[in-house]
Amino acid sequence: MMNSVMTLNLQGFLFLFYFLPPRSYLRFLSNKFDLCVSQEFLRGRPKEIPHNEKLLSLKFESLDYDNIENQLFLDEERRMSYMGFRCLEISRWVICALIGFLTGLIACFIDIVVEQVAKVKYNVIKENIETFTEAGGLSISLILWAVLNCSFVIVGAILVAFFEPIAAGSGIPQIKCYLNGVKIPRVVRLKTLVVKVCGVICSVVGGLAVGKEGPMIHSGGVVAAGVSQGRSTSLKRDFKIFEYFRRDTEKRDFVSAGAAAGVSAAFGAPVGGVLFSLEEGASFWNQMLTWRIFFASMISTFTLNFVLSVYHKKPGELSNPGLINFGRFESDSLAYTFYEIPLFIAMGAELLLCLMSAVLFCRYVHRPCLQVMEATLVAAVTAAVSFTMIYFSNDCQPLAPDNTEVYQLQLFCADGEYNSMATAFFNTPEKSVTSLFHDQPGTYNPLTLGLFTLTYFFLACWTYGLAVSAGVFIPSLLIGAAWGRLCGILLASIFSSSSTWADPGKYALIGAAAQLGGIVRMTLSLTVILVEATGNVTYGLPIMLVLMTSKIVGDYFQEGLYDIHIKLQSVPFLHWEAPATSHWLTAREVMSSPVTCLNKIEKVGTIVDILSNTSTNHNGFPVVVQVMEGDVPAKLCGLILRSQLIVLLKHKVFVELARSRLTQRKLLLKDFRDAYPRFPPIQSIHVSQDERECMMDLTEFMNPTPYTVPQETSLPRVFKLFRALGLRHLVVVDDENRVVGLVSRKDLARYHLGKHGLEELHLAQT
Amino acid sequence: MMNSVMTLNLQGFLFLFYFLPPRSYLRFLSNKFDLCVSQEFLRGRPKEIPHNEKLLSLKFESLDYDNIENQLFLDEERRMSYMGFRCLEISRWVICALIGFLTGLIACFIDIVVEQVAKVKYNVIKENIETFTEAGGLSISLILWAVLNCSFVIVGAILVAFFEPIAAGSGIPQIKCYLNGVKIPRVVRLKTLVVKVCGVICSVVGGLAVGKEGPMIHSGGVVAAGVSQGRSTSLKRDFKIFEYFRRDTEKRDFVSAGAAAGVSAAFGAPVGGVLFSLEEGASFWNQMLTWRIFFASMISTFTLNFVLSVYHKKPGELSNPGLINFGRFESDSLAYTFYEIPLFIAMGAELLLCLMSAVLFCRYVHRPCLQVMEATLVAAVTAAVSFTMIYFSNDCQPLAPDNTEVYQLQLFCADGEYNSMATAFFNTPEKSVTSLFHDQPGTYNPLTLGLFTLTYFFLACWTYGLAVSAGVFIPSLLIGAAWGRLCGILLASIFSSSSTWADPGKYALIGAAAQLGGIVRMTLSLTVILVEATGNVTYGLPIMLVLMTSKIVGDYFQEGLYDIHIKLQSVPFLHWEAPATSHWLTAREVMSSPVTCLNKIEKVGTIVDILSNTSTNHNGFPVVVQVMEGDVPAKLCGLILRSQLIVLLKHKVFVELARSRLTQRKLLLKDFRDAYPRFPPIQSIHVSQDERECMMDLTEFMNPTPYTVPQETSLPRVFKLFRALGLRHLVVVDDENRVVGLVSRKDLARYHLGKHGLEELHLAQT
Repeated sequence: MMNSVMTLNLQGFLFLFYFLPPRSYLRFLSNKFDLCVSQEFLRGRPKEIPHNEKLLSLKFESLDYDNIENQLFLDEERRMSYMGFRCLEISRWVICALIGFLTGLIACFIDIVVEQVAKVKYNVIKENIETFTEAGGLSISLILWAVLNCSFVIVGAILVAFFEPIAAGSGIPQIKCYLNGVKIPRVVRLKTLVVKVCGVICSVVGGLAVGKEGPMIHSGGVVAAGVSQGRSTSLKRDFKIFEYFRRDTEKRDFVSAGAAAGVSAAFGAPVGGVLFSLEEGASFWNQMLTWRIFFASMISTFTLNFVLSVYHKKPGELSNPGLINFGRFESDSLAYTFYEIPLFIAMGAELLLCLMSAVLFCRYVHRPCLQVMEATLVAAVTAAVSFTMIYFSNDCQPLAPDNTEVYQLQLFCADGEYNSMATAFFNTPEKSVTSLFHDQPGTYNPLTLGLFTLTYFFLACWTYGLAVSAGVFIPSLLIGAAWGRLCGILLASIFSSSSTWADPGKYALIGAAAQLGGIVRMTLSLTVILVEATGNVTYGLPIMLVLMTSKIVGDYFQEGLYDIHIKLQSVPFLHWEAPATSHWLTAREVMSSPVTCLNKIEKVGTIVDILSNTSTNHNGFPVVVQVMEGDVPAKLCGLILRSQLIVLLKHKVFVELARSRLTQRKLLLKDFRDAYPRFPPIQSIHVSQDERECMMDLTEFMNPTPYTVPQETSLPRVFKLFRALGLRHLVVVDDENRVVGLVSRKDLARYHLGKHGLEELHLAQT
Repeated sequence: MMNSVMTLNLQGFLFLFYFLPPRSYLRFLSNKFDLCVSQEFLRGRPKEIPHNEKLLSLKFESLDYDNIENQLFLDEERRMSYMGFRCLEISRWVICALIGFLTGLIACFIDIVVEQVAKVKYNVIKENIETFTEAGGLSISLILWAVLNCSFVIVGAILVAFFEPIAAGSGIPQIKCYLNGVKIPRVVRLKTLVVKVCGVICSVVGGLAVGKEGPMIHSGGVVAAGVSQGRSTSLKRDFKIFEYFRRDTEKRDFVSAGAAAGVSAAFGAPVGGVLFSLEEGASFWNQMLTWRIFFASMISTFTLNFVLSVYHKKPGELSNPGLINFGRFESDSLAYTFYEIPLFIAMGAELLLCLMSAVLFCRYVHRPCLQVMEATLVAAVTAAVSFTMIYFSNDCQPLAPDNTEVYQLQLFCADGEYNSMATAFFNTPEKSVTSLFHDQPGTYNPLTLGLFTLTYFFLACWTYGLAVSAGVFIPSLLIGAAWGRLCGILLASIFSSSSTWADPGKYALIGAAAQLGGIVRMTLSLTVILVEATGNVTYGLPIMLVLMTSKIVGDYFQEGLYDIHIKLQSVPFLHWEAPATSHWLTAREVMSSPVTCLNKIEKVGTIVDILSNTSTNHNGFPVVVQVMEGDVPAKLCGLILRSQLIVLLKHKVFVELARSRLTQRKLLLKDFRDAYPRFPPIQSIHVSQDERECMMDLTEFMNPTPYTVPQETSLPRVFKLFRALGLRHLVVVDDENRVVGLVSRKDLARYHLGKHGLEELHLAQT
């Protein structure tokens, strides 16, 4: 079944590609997208109702980035001395250093393992090919190659599909959601990290059209979430340190540092990492936090550099960038003139870049074993296609004497020459990118590049969304570099008189930037990342222009890849600003009403019943002075969360018990922190019939000063409050401070700007 | 009188410098600082009470970065179509492009004028010196040099002291305050810009130890504030465009773009510009805004590059950075090893860097003519000292064949040689920095460098705070580069065996970074600025480490230069976070109470009386349903600002008049926008005795949904709300929504963390 779907997809795609104008073709794909389920977020749930853009899922919980300033919290803060706060601040820096260090080590581990295993693999195949080139029977080499690739990919796919489906893909959309305030289940767990690291090694070594950079960002985030909590729930170890940081607000700050450290390690771009964190994730901005994020990024690059310098037997030589090394661009070859700027902009506007983000195949494959089979098939096809391309290519180039790291195949070329197509295909994608950037003019002939671009493009599209851990950065760069170099060569042949066009390497760089920018739609951070990765700021300005153009052109057709993902999963994601035309709406229209309120001193039975009610499944409850009978709402005096109530029930903090057992210790903030973040479900807490009659005093535990707005507040104003403060719930009150409604993140995320003005998404339970 | 104070300062300083341990010396300076008034902010007010750190001035108004969402505003927003919002968005981009373009042009203008005039000046002096070297009578050359310098400086100082005192200095603290929400009078006016540009040209050409980079940031801000409003109040021209942007919120966004464009033009660092804006100024963060800021920065660099390329007769050659060109660092000379890292860090920790920020002389000179005389004196002394240094130096170096832009003096050296001290002194500071970075090892001997560092350090300290437009970036870089190069030479002589230490240029770079970082205390943005200015990311990591170290070490002794300034002026500046130990305080303690409230329908006489009351001078008034008699507070229903009331009074929007004259047109948002930002004072509005008896209906004009907090809200929570939303007033209500107090920016800025825990500043009327 899977095969036929794939074939259908491919045929339909090809048909459309050739016969329809681009815009209508994109429309078609976009509609197709609405119907299909991307598996990136929640794999392994075969019976799900297909999502679409018009629904907003309720299955995602939100995170609370507003401190719960209840009595316990304030007491603790007030007890703390100035030195205590200094120590906390120092431990924050220590944690950031640890995050950077560990992220750097993970990057080293991935890099070294991939390099070693890839070396062995390519050498085996190369020897085999060289043996059989003369003897005949190259099909045996092909089979060897395919089998080797498949075996790696199978391992990676099994890990992901069976053990931790959330580790599939790059993990960037998930981290983006996390920083936005959406809780994606299992996204920052240790198991996810392990599967991710092993998975990415397997898929890169398996020769798929993927990169190892994207997953580093997710890995950094997981490391941060783990280290900052001072314990591992999975390993059941609690180191009794960093307990103060066991809440959403602090954890988020560290996760953003982790993501930055990941970028920093992946691209050797510490500043780019900080900007990535801020541009993609953060709605908050704080000087101290930014410096800590920067510190984590620096440590990460530094660790990676140091370990790699030792590994490369040049200890202390720290001038190497991150995982991907674009090589050093010499300043001379990079000089560009004013006349080239429009050209660069035109390259940014190339349609190709929009295609990729739209074409990425949808998956109808949900069962883990089918996912593994699909990944295997892709691996085999990749090997076969690469082999065919190399086999039929007759682009022979003289062998460069010093290029030892790149695997060059002689194949049918004369002695002292190598097959140019093989440099592109028979290599890890990182090496191919470097080769496209730096090889002498004339290394590749245009046909080779054109064929390579097309083939690799299809492979990358097909590969994307497989149940393997893999990033989309490197394939995009590679495709972009290939067509960029092609443009350069064509320009050089047109304007053969001028020496300006002599170096196709710079066009490769611009093409790579355009392609990547069109897919991920970042501008500021991507500019810095690319500049830091190339090690030369000369090309900063053209890269910026290209990225800006590709973003504008791309946005005309379709959102960026990560946003498409997030939208497809119906995640209640809050954008930067409220939709422009939403001033019509006020809090009254947006809020959920009526609200389930609790009394300051409430019966345990009532609380249990409210929490067990699966049809509402609320997470925040306004606490009121006294619920009046009838329709008259009561005065707000606080807000309490489901998680707090659960802890209270678990510890049986009942008024009657406190009276009878005087020895019962007072509940501390520590009890809430110990339960964080995996609060037990209400079903697991047993409350006897007698206890149901007891009373609970919420005064000490509720937040007595929740943010409130009047009913007439406009949606943009409510939105701004949510976004700036990272709220999860906002109580709507009337002019006498009586509760009339509750606005949650999901209520706000419902409204978005569609093609016909403001649209309202429906809330779905799935 | 001035001279004696100066002498006293110098003597005291020298005494202390030699005989006291550094820490106690710094303490002394710090105390001295508390007593003296820096003139940076409000020059020309001789009879001011001296400020000190323990007071908070009430003379600074605040800006309102929260939209006033009243009925008029909402009506307008609701009438606007989706296309209307698109057009607004597009005009925002257009304005940013204009800001970048004009800022770039201003930078070009300054650069070209300075270069041309300096060329003429140095050539005249050079010829004169060369004539008199052989003939004897070099004192005539000295007088010529001094007179030339003084005449330029006098012009600059007169402009600043008599026409626009706010244009003195770099203007960075003022822009920082503006972005923070403090209104510094006249800071973004056209006149300020003109005086700033002319002033900076005069002071740089006048040979003072100043740079032209800092003022660019202020200039960019002024350009932005002007362009975005679509009119010039000074020139009485209204272009009737961009009217929508005539409010504090929008203007702030553009000013931050302007500041970024200024940095971008000054250092050729577009990314650095964005980061500067965010690190130093912004408490807000928004993806679209950031992209616009980035766009403005790009356009600015681009314009500068293009115009300069035409000017340099190489049209289209865009690879030049900004105003300051650090020259291209070749990758080879920049390789560094792991072992050098601790050295770099140690350089970052050098004490010298802390000194400068502490030593900057205080001014007791308030009268404009004395200020001009002081500036003239400094100019003459600078010329005299430079001349003496060059005269007594015997550091002769062979003439490099191609170095045409640098003015080399032969003086008493042999033919084919030049005086090395002259390269440092007899040049614009930018050229000297480049020379220190790039000249071959052996160009300077250690004695030259040591003497230069010391002399220039004293000159820069003395110059700083003069009534001239000037930046502190370049002098800091120059001092840092000099002692950095000195360190490099000393290291090379110690470890003469290794080739690692061969190039003192890289130590010059590190020294410059350390010195500048110690003075301005930026890390992230300064790293990027320096990396972009050097055009090479290889040195990113050491620069980061150095900046981080210098910040940590510097913060131990004293705040950064800009923060000292802001503190000395008793500006109600809100820092990033509430003081750590402020959980003890609640809104009840912080708020001003009782509050002057207005009724929804209020008597005109009452309003006029309230507004005329100079002893309170409130700016925001809660509107209540009905002020009860006695102590019972009334229910909140809105918030209205002084500026709105003034406009209402001016247009006589009285209930009775509206009834009698049916033709009277309804007040529109346009009327408020036309009056923005120079609202007339209440004294200028004439209200007759009859009119005093009329009533005013505020319903339509007040903000019906002001943010409120309960009395028990902790200070950090209130602080977070202020900082995140850019509030100016926050109404404190009781549990029945009755007004009990009002928190303003100044109430929050009062609390800060001193050496003995939380300290409360007193509010002063001055």
